[in-house]
Amino acid sequence: MTRTFAFDLDAFRKDLDGIAIEDNPALVKQKSRDFFWYSPILKGQLEHVTGDLVATPKDEAEVIRILKAAFAHDVPVTPRGGGTGNYGQAMPLSRGLILNLAEMNKVKAIHPGRVICEPGAIIAQIDKETRAHSGQELRLHPSTYATASIAGYVAGGSGGVGSIRWGGLRDIGNVLRLRVVTMEAEPRILELTGWELHKVMHAYGTNGIITEVEMPLTAAYDWVDVLVGFDQWMDTVRYCDALGNADGLLLKEIAAIAAPVPHTYFLRHQKFIPEGKSVAVLMVAPHAMDAFLAFTARAKGEVLFRADTAADPKGLPPAYELAWNHTTLRALRVDPSITYIQTMFAPPTHIEKIETITRLFGDEVPGHLEFVRFDGKITPMGLSLIRHTTNERLEEIMRLHEENGCPIFNPHRYTLEEGGMKQTDLVQLDFKREADPKGLLNPGKMIAWEDPSFDFAAQKTYLFPGLQQTG
Amino acid sequence: MTRTFAFDLDAFRKDLDGIAIEDNPALVKQKSRDFFWYSPILKGQLEHVTGDLVATPKDEAEVIRILKAAFAHDVPVTPRGGGTGNYGQAMPLSRGLILNLAEMNKVKAIHPGRVICEPGAIIAQIDKETRAHSGQELRLHPSTYATASIAGYVAGGSGGVGSIRWGGLRDIGNVLRLRVVTMEAEPRILELTGWELHKVMHAYGTNGIITEVEMPLTAAYDWVDVLVGFDQWMDTVRYCDALGNADGLLLKEIAAIAAPVPHTYFLRHQKFIPEGKSVAVLMVAPHAMDAFLAFTARAKGEVLFRADTAADPKGLPPAYELAWNHTTLRALRVDPSITYIQTMFAPPTHIEKIETITRLFGDEVPGHLEFVRFDGKITPMGLSLIRHTTNERLEEIMRLHEENGCPIFNPHRYTLEEGGMKQTDLVQLDFKREADPKGLLNPGKMIAWEDPSFDFAAQKTYLFPGLQQTG
Repeated sequence: MTRTFAFDLDAFRKDLDGIAIEDNPALVKQKSRDFFWYSPILKGQLEHVTGDLVATPKDEAEVIRILKAAFAHDVPVTPRGGGTGNYGQAMPLSRGLILNLAEMNKVKAIHPGRVICEPGAIIAQIDKETRAHSGQELRLHPSTYATASIAGYVAGGSGGVGSIRWGGLRDIGNVLRLRVVTMEAEPRILELTGWELHKVMHAYGTNGIITEVEMPLTAAYDWVDVLVGFDQWMDTVRYCDALGNADGLLLKEIAAIAAPVPHTYFLRHQKFIPEGKSVAVLMVAPHAMDAFLAFTARAKGEVLFRADTAADPKGLPPAYELAWNHTTLRALRVDPSITYIQTMFAPPTHIEKIETITRLFGDEVPGHLEFVRFDGKITPMGLSLIRHTTNERLEEIMRLHEENGCPIFNPHRYTLEEGGMKQTDLVQLDFKREADPKGLLNPGKMIAWEDPSFDFAAQKTYLFPGLQQTG
Repeated sequence: MTRTFAFDLDAFRKDLDGIAIEDNPALVKQKSRDFFWYSPILKGQLEHVTGDLVATPKDEAEVIRILKAAFAHDVPVTPRGGGTGNYGQAMPLSRGLILNLAEMNKVKAIHPGRVICEPGAIIAQIDKETRAHSGQELRLHPSTYATASIAGYVAGGSGGVGSIRWGGLRDIGNVLRLRVVTMEAEPRILELTGWELHKVMHAYGTNGIITEVEMPLTAAYDWVDVLVGFDQWMDTVRYCDALGNADGLLLKEIAAIAAPVPHTYFLRHQKFIPEGKSVAVLMVAPHAMDAFLAFTARAKGEVLFRADTAADPKGLPPAYELAWNHTTLRALRVDPSITYIQTMFAPPTHIEKIETITRLFGDEVPGHLEFVRFDGKITPMGLSLIRHTTNERLEEIMRLHEENGCPIFNPHRYTLEEGGMKQTDLVQLDFKREADPKGLLNPGKMIAWEDPSFDFAAQKTYLFPGLQQTG
């Protein structure tokens, strides 16, 4: 099944009269990109992708006008927040309109335990306002805290800093309510709560446009960034695992990163990190520091850096910008051949699995683990770095992970299914049928819609026929 | 080894001049008791126990004067908070002085994430002040929230409401600092943090007198009391287990209580609870209610009661007064023959173990589980009720639990070791040697001190030779 979109751009534009529009090709291309280039495979596939126009609505009424016009003119619409995704989530594979939600960025209301925002609100700005209002902050944020939008995070992210305490975005309770506009002749406004949220969460905007987000808040603290070093990688892993399971110690982030990554790629922290050290990157509640230090001393961890007593921590990036995909970013900046994979080391045999993978690949796949709660259990998620040689070897590395019981969430694919559970998400598909009957929202990202007969078991990469041609 | 204490009470009294003293035998006996009578075995052993005097210091200087005088005159000293223990923790087995810390009850300072209190501060009062100050509350509290003192909880408790999120008191980080006065010729003041806290935590005041407590705080919410009913006990268990493992749902309390206990013994909630229903007793964060209700509906749980929408919830006890040892108390009030045991159903086979125990005993041992975090994992702790017949059968029920892989923390013993891990705690013993060289603090509670040759493997009950005789 080949999908193409033919539309009259000028006629569509006329319907957008009064709405902020950008059509300078260089600026449109800038707003058509995310961090897809972390992946050498996506870099090859998506480098040329661009939209035709960028529309920047100032409120929900304008969003509805835009969607109505796009529906009438069969124009593909790809929503965009901060553009901080890594899998082409916000990239318009079939050209059309970029729906830039950056100007809908207000924090609308703050209550005990919850905040209501416009979709383009920047996560760090939300925290700034909720902290000032009542000492509260979001439970979870990506390492792109300073630039990511809240709806982009909900639509394209899965977890991050805070997941050690709260699990992932998909865990019920971590998003409270989404207001969504459908892509129909007469767009409807829906309010989703409870299980219904799964219809549009992590759907890349393929089946509705989020115009309001209600998120839970938790107590804000002046988290202390700490780096703890070990001579042995597996000691770092065991330390992080035990730390995550220490129920009385309040931490917001626990990552383990194998030598030589920390010394070699964390340039601004380099002076604190001896070359051979594997490092735990941590964010610790200030009132937990005494107990944390006692715990760490008993585990024979060496505190290499702590921001609360550091002589001059001002020029240093925050700990969360050493973690999650910022680890990858810092490595890429020094060595552009680096890429990464995402995997999971499921308990109770997580330690053994990590040992196996470490033995199998050594420094070709430097360890990077993010410890999170998953179904109630502390679970190391791998965001392992890869010293990339060929795409074939990259596929082989992923295959060897799966053969050793470590499922891959493939960051080298632009579709929802291949990057996730490798199966059709019927809840999301059904909602797309209802909310985007013409399939105009972010085309090419949901295989179940584009090619219902696609065989996930065949291990072949899905190539969206509607992907615009190079040049 | 027999221990007796001979002392000149009048001479001792003279040294206490200016300190509030009570010697009316009826009032002294009242202050010599706790809730030991939950246990038919302890009831027989301890019913007659009383001290000679009660001293009520108003500050740490008076505590030091009292300890100095007691050391000089060889007077046993048993500290007392709210007297809400269940194992005779605060009962003076060898007479002597009751050190009543009830008047040292001030909240001294509140900071982000922590509170500093005097030892006798009532837990509910601490929360009242920290809530008013900055929307904070203690992480953990016993079901005797309204009457228990903070130092009594630390010295004699193990966990409670909030343990589903934070684990137990002994988990590092759940107590931040204790200030302790030793029982020596010249009492010393020690400040304990980190692992050192274990020297005096859950030591029943056998090796030091706590004069200041620093505890971590968390965000306070207007927790919603909810009762969820099921026709099947095991469905209740599985629901609570899944709820505890739902990382995005913020709850402060999850208990599962088997039919017919809820209907029969929760008299003021009886109209909400059909007779055959097993019940989950829950405290849910208000902002989690939508997600919680969606979760519960999918699990086919029937919401029998929720305090946030109940017509007239004013006359009802709070949910936490249906849980922990208040479950036992409510049963005892209706049927005085009821008692209880404490056990643990360790994951990953916790569900199977609960099924086995349920099959083995049926309604002789009605199920009561408190779900807590234990070493990072959601773990059902049994506070099972017992329809008591004979002490022999009670011992047999406990033995059968242990034979089926469910360790018993015996609430029918007054010693630290028998109620706990059935082994010597060298950290506590060493600290007693240092801080109470004459063994005057709460005599008879630490077997390791009283009888170093006691054989825990022999399964015989320890009988303290110094226990005052009946009458």
